[in-house]
Amino acid sequence: MKKAKISHNVILRLPRYLRYLENLHRDGMVRISSEELGRRMGIPASQIRQDLSCFGEFGQRGYGYRVEMLIREVSEILGISGGRRAVVIGAGNLGRAIISNFPFANYGIRLTHAFDVSADIVGQTLAGLTIGHIDSLEAEFQKSPPDVAVLTMSAESAPAIAGRLIDAGIRGIWNFTNEDLVVSNPHVVVENIHFSDSLLTLSYYMTRGIENENSP
Amino acid sequence: MKKAKISHNVILRLPRYLRYLENLHRDGMVRISSEELGRRMGIPASQIRQDLSCFGEFGQRGYGYRVEMLIREVSEILGISGGRRAVVIGAGNLGRAIISNFPFANYGIRLTHAFDVSADIVGQTLAGLTIGHIDSLEAEFQKSPPDVAVLTMSAESAPAIAGRLIDAGIRGIWNFTNEDLVVSNPHVVVENIHFSDSLLTLSYYMTRGIENENSP
Repeated sequence: MKKAKISHNVILRLPRYLRYLENLHRDGMVRISSEELGRRMGIPASQIRQDLSCFGEFGQRGYGYRVEMLIREVSEILGISGGRRAVVIGAGNLGRAIISNFPFANYGIRLTHAFDVSADIVGQTLAGLTIGHIDSLEAEFQKSPPDVAVLTMSAESAPAIAGRLIDAGIRGIWNFTNEDLVVSNPHVVVENIHFSDSLLTLSYYMTRGIENENSP
Repeated sequence: MKKAKISHNVILRLPRYLRYLENLHRDGMVRISSEELGRRMGIPASQIRQDLSCFGEFGQRGYGYRVEMLIREVSEILGISGGRRAVVIGAGNLGRAIISNFPFANYGIRLTHAFDVSADIVGQTLAGLTIGHIDSLEAEFQKSPPDVAVLTMSAESAPAIAGRLIDAGIRGIWNFTNEDLVVSNPHVVVENIHFSDSLLTLSYYMTRGIENENSP
């Protein structure tokens, strides 16, 4: 696979563009200029134009962007239309929150499996999904392998579980264990979520007193 | 308060430096060069040196950084030593996960309150904390006001609750509701966590096939 030349920071802004555009669409807005979008998002209009120009020509000078079309284009860029399947590993409080409340369907993802190790939890049904035992993972995946694994169990077991998941065909890992996960397979993508990073950013701005910063 | 000139992207990298340094310290490492730290983190050594130089002179040419000292300095910059207090609003699955498992103490924060609206939940004790009813918020805060509010309830009620929290003295909001929260008070810092942004980044790299990207 070819390495795209688009910077990671641009990629990190795309989901935020999508959120704002979806809110505009929900509010009935048909088109928007980069200036107005920038004002709402608290970023320069020139950055929006530059970011989007990495992927094609979506706006028209003097007219702006068609909101609905841009939502489709950004969704396409982000691979939302991929029709992916996901598994959640760990059905403790965080796993349950994600299984019950995270809108996977909005991102073109269907949650097909959930596993845990605890006898109290295995066999329970959550959001229509029966929690299986982690030891049945390989057998279950032979029938219908998911693409993405959501890790919500403890950090200690993450490397071993990640190895099994990758051997079983997983290509993306969404890691909530609060420890960076490094995998050796170059075709597997890992996204580490660190709640603490965001809390520390908050702490920094509370300490240094910057007004109303916003995540990029 | 004065507006610092340090870019938001630098701030976003500090918590990650801290995590890596703490792991090194845990592994018994006493000093590290920017080259070695950069290799482990997957970023250029020059970026590390440039980022840290925004805050002072921490390394020594030919010697590198003292791990323990740098942990202290970065912690200080991030305001971890602030001795802050926090309240969690919403004790559903996500709130319970955060109350039970998030290591607030590591970030110099003490969890002093938790509130919910549900009769099933109010009165329960979690991690030594009794969940109060949201309507007792103002009265409770008069006795001992926290600094930070963690919002883990539904997005619809967030703006109203945020207003009450700010009126009661909250200065930082850690927002997990998945909708950007905008507050008009310029002295209140808001950090919005969007799980979906991270999932979409994962989706992008799975679609476009970039090898082993890492969050900044």
